[in-house]
Amino acid sequence: MNYFEKSLELHEKLKWKIDFNSKVTIDSKELLSTAYSPWVAEPCRDIQKDSENAYKYTIKSNTVAVISDWSAVLWLWNIGGLAWLPVMEWKCVLFKEFAWVNAFPIVLDTQDTEEIIATIKHISPTVWGINLEDISAPRCFEIEERLKSELNIPVFHDDQHGTAIVALAWLINSLKVVGKNKDDIKIVVNWLWAAWTAIIKLFRLYWVWDIVVCDSKWIISKKRDDLNKEKMEILDMTNKNDISGNLADALVWADVFVWVSAPLVVTKEMVKTMKSDSIIFAMANPTPEIMPEDALEAWAKIVATGRSDYPNQLNNVLVFPGLFKWALENRVIKITDEHKLKAAFALANYVTNPTANEIIPSPLDKNVANIIASVIK
Amino acid sequence: MNYFEKSLELHEKLKWKIDFNSKVTIDSKELLSTAYSPWVAEPCRDIQKDSENAYKYTIKSNTVAVISDWSAVLWLWNIGGLAWLPVMEWKCVLFKEFAWVNAFPIVLDTQDTEEIIATIKHISPTVWGINLEDISAPRCFEIEERLKSELNIPVFHDDQHGTAIVALAWLINSLKVVGKNKDDIKIVVNWLWAAWTAIIKLFRLYWVWDIVVCDSKWIISKKRDDLNKEKMEILDMTNKNDISGNLADALVWADVFVWVSAPLVVTKEMVKTMKSDSIIFAMANPTPEIMPEDALEAWAKIVATGRSDYPNQLNNVLVFPGLFKWALENRVIKITDEHKLKAAFALANYVTNPTANEIIPSPLDKNVANIIASVIK
Repeated sequence: MNYFEKSLELHEKLKWKIDFNSKVTIDSKELLSTAYSPWVAEPCRDIQKDSENAYKYTIKSNTVAVISDWSAVLWLWNIGGLAWLPVMEWKCVLFKEFAWVNAFPIVLDTQDTEEIIATIKHISPTVWGINLEDISAPRCFEIEERLKSELNIPVFHDDQHGTAIVALAWLINSLKVVGKNKDDIKIVVNWLWAAWTAIIKLFRLYWVWDIVVCDSKWIISKKRDDLNKEKMEILDMTNKNDISGNLADALVWADVFVWVSAPLVVTKEMVKTMKSDSIIFAMANPTPEIMPEDALEAWAKIVATGRSDYPNQLNNVLVFPGLFKWALENRVIKITDEHKLKAAFALANYVTNPTANEIIPSPLDKNVANIIASVIK
Repeated sequence: MNYFEKSLELHEKLKWKIDFNSKVTIDSKELLSTAYSPWVAEPCRDIQKDSENAYKYTIKSNTVAVISDWSAVLWLWNIGGLAWLPVMEWKCVLFKEFAWVNAFPIVLDTQDTEEIIATIKHISPTVWGINLEDISAPRCFEIEERLKSELNIPVFHDDQHGTAIVALAWLINSLKVVGKNKDDIKIVVNWLWAAWTAIIKLFRLYWVWDIVVCDSKWIISKKRDDLNKEKMEILDMTNKNDISGNLADALVWADVFVWVSAPLVVTKEMVKTMKSDSIIFAMANPTPEIMPEDALEAWAKIVATGRSDYPNQLNNVLVFPGLFKWALENRVIKITDEHKLKAAFALANYVTNPTANEIIPSPLDKNVANIIASVIK
């Protein structure tokens, strides 16, 4: 049985993978009248008096909505909300499995920015956290920013910030393995869909100074006159030596190469122009930009992918369960850049002796979420 | 400890009353890659090809959203979505407890008709059923009708139709107890918020012909020139003898009196003008229009309330779990009047020998949902 068949069999067997279980058995009229009608009015009144009491009486304090408009589903373009439901369901399973956070999946039937913002605001009273998924750039920036400013619960676009946190943790430990210093390295970042701005921001906050970014055509430099708002913002943070040219020019003497783009766009020859002991993040899913065996054969010392069937999987499951667990337990209202840095340090430091094949913890390690939740302050 | 204190204690103890449990333990990289990234793409593609496959692979086939805009919270006016969350949570507990249906609560932060319709449509791909709660009339009619016509999953405003189904079952069995025939009785219906049109419709479908309806002022009759659209529709179905006057005029010689209005608005004297062996539904919550002991002392033979601490509780929990269980199991797209009639008959017939204190099954009887789910066809 191949992976395709195995997956379909598993999904059919586990179609009801989330079970919304009641923690109470309704077995007496007294319980029914105390819990529900008419005496449920008492906690309602208490919450009306002081919204703080919602944390005392309701599931809000441990509930997150996982919401997607499936507009950034890289390899399954325009798939439709219903067809994207399995992915959101598994994300909810991971929230529960790794951090005991209750999450329910919502796949939207709209990709309109204003409709999405309005919908999420309208359903927000139930939850203490919105995990956004697979929303395309640049809409994802506006949707997240607007929701963050208009809601008083954490809003987190995992594709951006979860990816950035894992990437930084990975960078920190990779540098330890190859014995390089963050002050001396050159990082090339190629077109990263929604995630690139977040990754670059976090790398900059870690005080990596030499970052060169390419879009689908050229290096983002002052000589370009075709940069949109997002790319202008990226330029402000990068290319301190003001180099220009194409991706091949950027790659020469680079130490780290970060991609989330398309399958197999990177060749062995390209990797060979980089410095020795190079570090490669090839995060396209399910087929990476270059297969790890090819990159390692060419020159690279360490390769990470988004795949769980290779070593060094950069999997956001290392971050979002613990981050939300922390936010829920501490009633955090905004997840800031400082929190993200701390999460990345916590994740990196969790591995005491990183090696080329064990840079960051296994995505199966259920202690990671506890560590992240307890380290961020 | 009084009921208020007991309720607060119980709600604090059971604040996380719903647990969104995973049915699978993520304990291997193979499972993680088969279930989630990258091979989750397979069931996604299968659903994209044929939406029918969502029932094979996802929770949609057993999931309902319980949604309220808390605009018809009779005794806690304008309480706010967050403060209404405990009620919606318990409703979800009841779905699970009585019919093993997965339900999640959504309290809205808007009471705007168009915003509510748009929001519910946008989140609908995840679920196979929308249970609307506590939406005020006449907005509830438009919201339900629009959603029914624009979505291809069941949409059910429980305050209207759940109440109507329970009321009809109760009427059927009450008539058995007092030995009256549906062709010979006069029913007076007083202002019933959202539920009255639904109750009157269902009574008419049961071929009760003599129904007189009062609004907050007068009998709804052809002589009135102040009737809105809703009341014109009610007039079309009622007052065949074309009587006019006030509530006291309507009540004379009535056999059945149905109220969902306000606490203690009915006096013993009013009940005494009715026929002997009268039947009274006093469904205001938590304090009924007349306390059962007063009604029985005055004249009535059978009294029902919405309270679980008196006999004959008219509790919608007798209907919605089984009705949705049936709809989910049979992939029903529209819940029709015929389905509602069948549900009422199923509920009435479940009691083989109704008596004045046991007209319909106990709301604790967990077999009722199975019976309703199996009887509707």
